[in-house]
Amino acid sequence: MQQQISIITLGIADLARSKRFYAGGFGWTSVFENEEIAFYQMNGFVFGTWLKDKLAEDSRQPVSGTSAFALAHNVASQTEVERVIALLVEHGGTLLRPADAPPHGGFRGYVADPDGHAWEIAWNPAWPIDADGHVRFAM
Amino acid sequence: MQQQISIITLGIADLARSKRFYAGGFGWTSVFENEEIAFYQMNGFVFGTWLKDKLAEDSRQPVSGTSAFALAHNVASQTEVERVIALLVEHGGTLLRPADAPPHGGFRGYVADPDGHAWEIAWNPAWPIDADGHVRFAM
Repeated sequence: MQQQISIITLGIADLARSKRFYAGGFGWTSVFENEEIAFYQMNGFVFGTWLKDKLAEDSRQPVSGTSAFALAHNVASQTEVERVIALLVEHGGTLLRPADAPPHGGFRGYVADPDGHAWEIAWNPAWPIDADGHVRFAM
Repeated sequence: MQQQISIITLGIADLARSKRFYAGGFGWTSVFENEEIAFYQMNGFVFGTWLKDKLAEDSRQPVSGTSAFALAHNVASQTEVERVIALLVEHGGTLLRPADAPPHGGFRGYVADPDGHAWEIAWNPAWPIDADGHVRFAM
């Protein structure tokens, strides 16, 4: 079976509020939008933000709180980590953890999107990122 | 800013139980494992399964239930959707929604991993997947 994830879908309450965070904060451009979903073409897969009632109905899994789950966006330097975190907070994000150096090296902080989904913004000099944004595990 | 997600991390309670689902069910091979985390190299990014207490401590976001969130694994046919769902359920997954045809076309069902994270297994003939597993949005 292909070692592949096709879509990451986050349930959201308000499309405009979510778009302010993803388009305004991260600076990402959507590839499709309608009144209930926005899709973004990412590095090898598709990222979707979908009204959470629709997602719960489709997956038949009710929303009851916050689950253990985080997405990471890696950047090229420690300065860039701080710049991106500040931008995200300016666009409706909530700071979960100010950036600092983890035991395994690099530099990272966490921001929750307007719906509470956790994003790690990290500089990890060991993991290569190519021009198309493809990220590889390395030690 | 690069339109890029580097890591998807799911919090889990038991590494062996989680590995049975991801390695046994999906058939994926990890690129790194220790006593608290397993990493899988995916299509342009890294997928991690990390003990949920460690993830909550790192992100400073406590776990309180199930959030609105799903991952999708697309396959090449309707038959394959049913085969993969059966395999995942055999390896510790819980069927959330038996596969059927959504209004927008294709075929899909949902399975929760042993920690309750929702996976959509889908056949979407409109979205191309290349030999390296890179998925593109299309209409």
